Amino acid sequence: MAYFSKHYHNPGTAPGTLVAKTESRRPVNLHLLDYTEEHVEEVSLASAADCREYLARESKTWIQVNGQADPDTLRNLGDLFDLHDLALEDVLNTGQRPKVELYDDQLFLIAAMPFYDGENLEIVQISLFVGKNYLICLCPLDEDPFEPVRKRMRMPNNRRFSSRGIDYLLYALLDLITDSGFPVLEQFGYQLEEMETDLLENPNQQTLAQIHGLKRELLVLRRVLWPQRELLTSLMRTEDQLINADTQVYFRDCHDHSVQIIELLESFREMATSMLDIYLSSISQRTNETMRVLTIIATIFIPLTFVVGIYGMNFEHADSPWAMPELGWYYGYPMVWAVMIAITGGLIWFFRRRGWM
Amino acid sequence: MAYFSKHYHNPGTAPGTLVAKTESRRPVNLHLLDYTEEHVEEVSLASAADCREYLARESKTWIQVNGQADPDTLRNLGDLFDLHDLALEDVLNTGQRPKVELYDDQLFLIAAMPFYDGENLEIVQISLFVGKNYLICLCPLDEDPFEPVRKRMRMPNNRRFSSRGIDYLLYALLDLITDSGFPVLEQFGYQLEEMETDLLENPNQQTLAQIHGLKRELLVLRRVLWPQRELLTSLMRTEDQLINADTQVYFRDCHDHSVQIIELLESFREMATSMLDIYLSSISQRTNETMRVLTIIATIFIPLTFVVGIYGMNFEHADSPWAMPELGWYYGYPMVWAVMIAITGGLIWFFRRRGWM
Amino acid sequence: MAYFSKHYHNPGTAPGTLVAKTESRRPVNLHLLDYTEEHVEEVSLASAADCREYLARESKTWIQVNGQADPDTLRNLGDLFDLHDLALEDVLNTGQRPKVELYDDQLFLIAAMPFYDGENLEIVQISLFVGKNYLICLCPLDEDPFEPVRKRMRMPNNRRFSSRGIDYLLYALLDLITDSGFPVLEQFGYQLEEMETDLLENPNQQTLAQIHGLKRELLVLRRVLWPQRELLTSLMRTEDQLINADTQVYFRDCHDHSVQIIELLESFREMATSMLDIYLSSISQRTNETMRVLTIIATIFIPLTFVVGIYGMNFEHADSPWAMPELGWYYGYPMVWAVMIAITGGLIWFFRRRGWM
Amino acid sequence: MAYFSKHYHNPGTAPGTLVAKTESRRPVNLHLLDYTEEHVEEVSLASAADCREYLARESKTWIQVNGQADPDTLRNLGDLFDLHDLALEDVLNTGQRPKVELYDDQLFLIAAMPFYDGENLEIVQISLFVGKNYLICLCPLDEDPFEPVRKRMRMPNNRRFSSRGIDYLLYALLDLITDSGFPVLEQFGYQLEEMETDLLENPNQQTLAQIHGLKRELLVLRRVLWPQRELLTSLMRTEDQLINADTQVYFRDCHDHSVQIIELLESFREMATSMLDIYLSSISQRTNETMRVLTIIATIFIPLTFVVGIYGMNFEHADSPWAMPELGWYYGYPMVWAVMIAITGGLIWFFRRRGWM
Amino acid sequence: MAYFSKHYHNPGTAPGTLVAKTESRRPVNLHLLDYTEEHVEEVSLASAADCREYLARESKTWIQVNGQADPDTLRNLGDLFDLHDLALEDVLNTGQRPKVELYDDQLFLIAAMPFYDGENLEIVQISLFVGKNYLICLCPLDEDPFEPVRKRMRMPNNRRFSSRGIDYLLYALLDLITDSGFPVLEQFGYQLEEMETDLLENPNQQTLAQIHGLKRELLVLRRVLWPQRELLTSLMRTEDQLINADTQVYFRDCHDHSVQIIELLESFREMATSMLDIYLSSISQRTNETMRVLTIIATIFIPLTFVVGIYGMNFEHADSPWAMPELGWYYGYPMVWAVMIAITGGLIWFFRRRGWM
Repeated sequence: MAYFSKHYHNPGTAPGTLVAKTESRRPVNLHLLDYTEEHVEEVSLASAADCREYLARESKTWIQVNGQADPDTLRNLGDLFDLHDLALEDVLNTGQRPKVELYDDQLFLIAAMPFYDGENLEIVQISLFVGKNYLICLCPLDEDPFEPVRKRMRMPNNRRFSSRGIDYLLYALLDLITDSGFPVLEQFGYQLEEMETDLLENPNQQTLAQIHGLKRELLVLRRVLWPQRELLTSLMRTEDQLINADTQVYFRDCHDHSVQIIELLESFREMATSMLDIYLSSISQRTNETMRVLTIIATIFIPLTFVVGIYGMNFEHADSPWAMPELGWYYGYPMVWAVMIAITGGLIWFFRRRGWM
Repeated sequence: MAYFSKHYHNPGTAPGTLVAKTESRRPVNLHLLDYTEEHVEEVSLASAADCREYLARESKTWIQVNGQADPDTLRNLGDLFDLHDLALEDVLNTGQRPKVELYDDQLFLIAAMPFYDGENLEIVQISLFVGKNYLICLCPLDEDPFEPVRKRMRMPNNRRFSSRGIDYLLYALLDLITDSGFPVLEQFGYQLEEMETDLLENPNQQTLAQIHGLKRELLVLRRVLWPQRELLTSLMRTEDQLINADTQVYFRDCHDHSVQIIELLESFREMATSMLDIYLSSISQRTNETMRVLTIIATIFIPLTFVVGIYGMNFEHADSPWAMPELGWYYGYPMVWAVMIAITGGLIWFFRRRGWM
Repeated sequence: MAYFSKHYHNPGTAPGTLVAKTESRRPVNLHLLDYTEEHVEEVSLASAADCREYLARESKTWIQVNGQADPDTLRNLGDLFDLHDLALEDVLNTGQRPKVELYDDQLFLIAAMPFYDGENLEIVQISLFVGKNYLICLCPLDEDPFEPVRKRMRMPNNRRFSSRGIDYLLYALLDLITDSGFPVLEQFGYQLEEMETDLLENPNQQTLAQIHGLKRELLVLRRVLWPQRELLTSLMRTEDQLINADTQVYFRDCHDHSVQIIELLESFREMATSMLDIYLSSISQRTNETMRVLTIIATIFIPLTFVVGIYGMNFEHADSPWAMPELGWYYGYPMVWAVMIAITGGLIWFFRRRGWM
Repeated sequence: MAYFSKHYHNPGTAPGTLVAKTESRRPVNLHLLDYTEEHVEEVSLASAADCREYLARESKTWIQVNGQADPDTLRNLGDLFDLHDLALEDVLNTGQRPKVELYDDQLFLIAAMPFYDGENLEIVQISLFVGKNYLICLCPLDEDPFEPVRKRMRMPNNRRFSSRGIDYLLYALLDLITDSGFPVLEQFGYQLEEMETDLLENPNQQTLAQIHGLKRELLVLRRVLWPQRELLTSLMRTEDQLINADTQVYFRDCHDHSVQIIELLESFREMATSMLDIYLSSISQRTNETMRVLTIIATIFIPLTFVVGIYGMNFEHADSPWAMPELGWYYGYPMVWAVMIAITGGLIWFFRRRGWM
Repeated sequence: MAYFSKHYHNPGTAPGTLVAKTESRRPVNLHLLDYTEEHVEEVSLASAADCREYLARESKTWIQVNGQADPDTLRNLGDLFDLHDLALEDVLNTGQRPKVELYDDQLFLIAAMPFYDGENLEIVQISLFVGKNYLICLCPLDEDPFEPVRKRMRMPNNRRFSSRGIDYLLYALLDLITDSGFPVLEQFGYQLEEMETDLLENPNQQTLAQIHGLKRELLVLRRVLWPQRELLTSLMRTEDQLINADTQVYFRDCHDHSVQIIELLESFREMATSMLDIYLSSISQRTNETMRVLTIIATIFIPLTFVVGIYGMNFEHADSPWAMPELGWYYGYPMVWAVMIAITGGLIWFFRRRGWM
C-alpha cells in the first residue's frame, strides 16, 4: 500500500475533465436490477445507454457498474441521468475521501470498503448516485461485492426492499460496506495478539517492521473511516426527501456499527503505538542483561588474569629476595589460588548485593 | 481479554437477523418481579410467554433474563413487547457500545458492567428495554448481579420504588452498573502502586508485561465507559415522558459518579503511559551502572595486565642491556609494583573526578 | 497519596445512605457566626440542633463544621436545613470532584483545597450549602482553615460582608480555597527547579522517582482543579437569585485566579513530561561517555597485550631462525616498544579523528 | 527553509507602511487579460496606471502582477482600485498566513502555493484582490504559474469563464493553487517510502537528518494549509454578493481537495513521528546485537585466557608437588585442553539456552 | 526565568488589597500626553493628582506610568479615575495573564510584552485603563517602550490619531506589544537552527540543556500569548461603545499578527520536542558506533591473545610429545602466525558480512 495512492489531474486542469487511466482497460460489467412489489428483473447490459428504457418506468432500478470505469461509460451515464461533471471526475479519480453531496435532486456518495486481498489490506472506492427511483453503484473491482444483497432481494416474499423506497437499497449497500470493516479489524486483532507475544518473548527487527506496517495500515484505514462515519451521520440526520424517516432508524444502526469500528480502530492504533515503546523497552532490557553477563564474567576473570600474569613475569627470583620469592616457596602456588578464590568470592558477593546474580 | 471480542454477522446479512451462538446453550433464567404500592410479587418464569398476564395489569413489572439469551426467547419477548428487530440483534451480538435509543414509546439501553472475575477483568453487556410500566433487563451472566436492588425492593415500608415510576427502577439498575466501576478502579489503583514499586526498585520483563496488560485493560474499559457516560448525560437531560423530572436528580448523581470514574480512568491511563517511560529510563540507568562497573574494573586491570605481560616476555635480558635489564635488578620487581600502583591510583583519581566512584 | 482515594458504598447500596467511616471518631466542632449590619456574634455549638434559633432570625448565619462529619450530625443538619440525601452522602464520601448543584432554592457546592502538610500534598474536600440567609461549610480538617475570613469579618467598620448578601461570604471562602493553589504551585516550581539541576548534572534513580512522584501529584491536583474552574465559571455566569450581579465581578476575579493556576499546572505537567525525556537522554549520554572511555582504554591496550603475549611464548628461538629471533637481538626489546608506541599512536590518531578524545 | 521566514516591520511602525525590501529589485511584470462573452484581450502593461482605461469598461479584467512587488506599483494599484493600506502591507510583507478579508465591497485573499524548486520545497504567497468586475493577482515569482488557466480561457467556444462572473476566475486560480499540493505530497510519499526502507535495513545518521528535515517541511506546509482550508470553507459558505451560488459548488470541490491534502499531510506527519521511534528502536536493536557478539566472544575467551595464564606462571614446579605438577605430567597439556573445551562447551550451552546463539 | 514567577497575596487576604513589594522602590515616572486635532501637549507629572486638570478638558489624554507602581500612586489614580480595587490589585501583582475586563464604562486590559534583555527572555506586564477620553498605561519597566508611538503622534499633519477616538491609541499600543513577538521568535528561530546543527553533528550535554531551556521559554511565552490572542479576538468583535467599528479593522490586523506569532510558536514547540527525540537517537547511534569499534577490536584480539597465551605455558614440551611439541618445531612459530592470521581473516569476513566494517 503506497503512501500516496490518489489519482489527480495536473494542477490547472479544467474541472470535470475525464481522462482514462492507461492501466487496466478491461471492459466494465453493467448489471441492472429492476424491482417493484410484484417482480424482480435482472439484466446484464451491453452499454450504459440500455438503461434508458427502465428510466421511464415506475419501478425502482439498481444499476451496478463493476470494473474500472472508462470515461465513455461515465459520460453516457452522466448524460442519461444528468450527473454532475465534478461527481464523474471523482468517480474516475479514485482515492477520494468518503463524502455525501447533494446535486439538485440527486445524492452523490463516495464510500470506502476495506477488505483483505490475501495478505494485503485493500480499500476500494464505491461511488453511488441516488435519484428518485434509481441507484447507480460503481465499484472498480471486477467481482461484485454486493451479491449478498441481491440474494436477499431475490428471496420470494421478501417485501423489505419492495415495500420501501430506493433509500432502503442504499442502506443495504452502505450497511454491507460498513460491516466489511469488522472482519478487517478482527484480522488486525489477531495480528496485534501475535505481535504482542513476539514483543515480550523474542523482539527482533521483523517484529518492528510488522508493528510499523500495522500502524501504517491503521492510519490509512482511519483516513477513510472517519469521513465515512460523518457520511452516515449526515444520512441519519438528513431532512432530504430522498431518505425516509422510516429508513433513518436503519442508518442509525449502520452509524452505530461505524462508531464501533472507529473506536476499535483508535484503540488498536493506541496499542500499536504503545507496542513500539514496549519493543524499545524490551530491547533495552535485553541489552542490559547481556551487559550484565559480560560484566560479571569480565570483572571476575580480568583481575585473576592479572594475578596469573604477575607470576608469569621473568624476574630473577632466585637472585633477589624482593623478586617474587613466592615462586620458590613450597606452598606458593596454593597461596596464589587462595588469593584468587578470595577475589572471586568478593566479586560474587558484590554482584549478589547489587542483585546482578 | 481478546483485542477483538465483538460478535458480528457476515457483512451483507439482513438487519435484525437472530442467529444462535453455538457456544453455551444452557437455558436462560427468567425472573419476574411485579410491584405496586401495596405488594411485591416475585415469580420464576418457565418461558417468556408467561409474562403476558402481567402486561395487562396496572402494576409495574421487572423482567430479568439471566444467561446467554437464545433467539427463541428473544423472539418471544420481541413479539410480546413489540421490541424492534435491530434492538434484539444488538442484545444477541454482545460487545456493543453503551447507548440509549428511542423506539416509538420504548427506551432501549445497552450498558456495560465491568467486574473482576478472579484475576481477570470482565465486561458484561446489560441490555434494557423500558416501557410505560415494565422494564426488561437481559444479562448474559448466569448469576443475577442485581440482587442488591431486589433486596431493597423487598424491604417492608420502602416506598421509594413503589411511589415512583419505572424510571426509578431503571436508575437503581444503572446506578449499580455505574458504581461497579469503583471496585474495578480500586483494584487498578493497587496494581499501579505495586508496579510503581517494582519499576523503580527492580524493573524486569514481567513488570513490562504487566504495564502493557494494564494499559490494554484500561483501554478496553475506556471504550465502554465513555459512551456509558454519554448515555447517562442523555438520560439526565432527556425530555422523554418515560423519565420524570424527579428522577433526573438521581440520574445526575449517577452521571456524577460516571464522570469521577472516567477521570480516574484517564489519570490511570496517563500514569501507565508515564510508567513505560520510567521503565525505559530505569533500565537505561541500570545499563549505565553496569557499564560503569565494567569500565572501572576493565580500565584498571587492562593496563596492569599489559605491564605484567611485558615482563613475561622472553627477551634475553642477560645478553643485552637494552632487553629489560630490570628483570635482573635487585629492586626490579618492587619497582614494577610501584609503577602499577601509580597507574591504578591515577585511574582511580580519574574516575573519582568523573564522579564514577 | 494513594492512586485510588475515593470513599464509595458497595454497588447497589440505596442512594443517600449515610454510613460512618470507622476511622477517626473524634467529635466534630461546630462554630456559628451570625452577622447583620449592626453586630457580629460568634458561638460554639454543642450540637447541630442549636442552630435552630438562628434560623428564624433576619441575620445572616455562617455555620462552620470542622472535623470528620458523623452521620448523626449530618442527619440533624439535613433535617434542620432540608438538605438533600444525595448531597449529604457526597459530604460523607469524601474524594468527590468539585461541583455546584442546585437543589430547589439551595446551592450545594463541593470544592477542593490543596495544601502542603509538611512534605506531603493533601487535598481536602470542602462542602458548602448556601441558602437565602445561611451558609453551612463542612471541612474534615480539625483546624479551621477559614480563620483569616473570620478575622476580616470581625474588623470593626468593615461593612463589606454585612452590606452584601450571603453570596459575598461564599465568594470569600471560595477565594481562599482557590488561592491556596498558589503556595502549592510555588512549591512545585521550586521542586522542578531542583530536579532540573539534578537532571543535567547528576541524573540518578532518585531523580527519576521524584519526577514520577511530581507527575503523579500534578495529575491528582489537576483532576480536582479543572472541575473547580468549571464551578467558578458557572457561579460567574449563573442567573440564580442567590448570587447577586454585584458579587459576580468578584467571582470573575476568583475564576481568573483559577485559570492562572490551571495554566501553571498544565505547563508544569508538560515540563515534568519533558524532564523524563531529558533524563533518558542524559543517561544515554552518560552511557555513551562511559562506553567511550572503555573503548579507548580497551582498544589501545588489547593489541599491546597481544604483542607482549607473542614474546612471552616459549618457542625455542635459539634452535630455529623462524622462531622469534628478535628475542635474542641486541635491540629486539626496544624494537618491540617502537612497534607498540606506533600502534598506540595510530589508535590515538584514529580516536581523535572520530572526535572521541 | 529557514525556521523564521516572515518579513515584518519593527514593532511600533505605523500600520500600512510600505517599505521596499532591498533584495531583488527586478521590475515587476504586469499582464492584463480582459474578457467578455465576445472577446479575450491580452496586454502587457508598462505600469499599473495603464489599467485605468479597462476599469471603466463592462468587461471582466484579470490583472496579473508577477515578480517581487515594489512599493510604488502597490501604491499605484492601491490608488486606482482603492485597496486598503493594511492589505497592501500584507502583500509586501510576504510570509502571511492564508486568509480572506472583506474590505467594503472588495475581497482580499492571501493563498499559499507549495511547489518543489528542484530539491527544495518552496511556498509562495499569492495575493488576490477581487472586485465587481476585476481580479488582481500578485505573485512574487518571475514566472507566471497561472498560464494553464489563461490557456483554458483562450480556447475558442469556451464559455465557462465568459458566461460566469469574476468569481469563477477566482475559483480557477484557487483550484490551481490548492491542487499544487498533490504533486508535493506525492513527492513526500516517495521520500517516506525510501526512508522506511533505510530505516529498517540500514539506519544511520543521515536517515535521521532526513526524517527530521521531512518533519520540518511537513510542519511548515501544515502551517499554511490549515488556514487555506479555512479560507476555502468560508468562500464555500459565504453569502457575499461577489460569490454566486452556482460557483459555490466548485468551491466545494476545491475545499474537498484541500481536505484530502490536509488529511494526507497529517497522516504523513504521524508516520514521520513514528519513524523516529522506529529509528531509535532499530539502533537499540543493533546495539543489542553488537553487544551480544562481544559478550559471546569475550565470555568464552576470557576464562580460557585465564587458564593458559595459570600455566604460564613460573612457579618452581620441579621443587614442590604443590606447584602445578601438571606441567611435568605426560598428559598434562591435553588435560588442560580438555578443561578448556569443557568450559567453552558449557558457555555455548548457556548462550544457546538464553537464545543468544 | 523562574518556573513560578507570579506575585500573590496570602490566601484569605481581602480582595483589592494593595501591598508594596519590598524590592525596587525607585519612584515611578509619570508622563502625560494630551492631544486634540489642533495640538499635542506633553508633560512630566510629579504626582498622579496633577492629571486632574486634564480630566475636565475635551481633549484626549494618555497617561503613561513607567516603573514599578507603588500603592500610593495606584490609590491616587484609582480615586481620580474611579478604577476598581480588583483591577488595581492586578496591576500591582504582576504576572497576570492577559485579559480584557469591562468595569462599568471603563475597559481594563492586561497585556504581556516579550523581549530579549541581552540573552534572557523577559515578559513584562502592561496594564491599560481606557475611558471615554483617556488612556492610562502602566509599565513596570523604567524605560518607556512606547516611544515609537509617541514619535508618530508628534509628527505634524499626522491626523491619524487626532481624527480618531482613544481606541486608535489603544490599537497603536497593542500593535506594538503584539509585534514585539516577532523579533523574539526570530531569535528563537536562529537558536533552533544552531541547535539542529549541533544535534546531528556533535550532540552533547550542553545541547540537551539548551533544548530544554528553549522548550521552557516557549512554554512560558505560550502561556501569555494564547490569552493575548483571545484579548485581541474580543476587541475585534466587541460591540462596546469604546471601540469604534472603523478601528476594528485595525484590531483585526493586530489579531492576524497574533495568530501568526502563535502558529510559529506552536511549530517551534513541536520542533523542539522533536529535537529531543533526535538527540536521543543521535546519542544511541553514537553509542552503537562506539560499541562496534570496541567489539571489532576486542573480538579480533581476544582470541589471538588466547593463542599466544597457550604457547606461553610452561609445559615441559621436551619431556612429552603431548605437550606442545610445536614449540620445538622448526616452523612452529610461523605456523602459529598462520593460524592467527586465519582467525583474524575469518572475523573480518564475519564483520564485513554483518556490515560492521
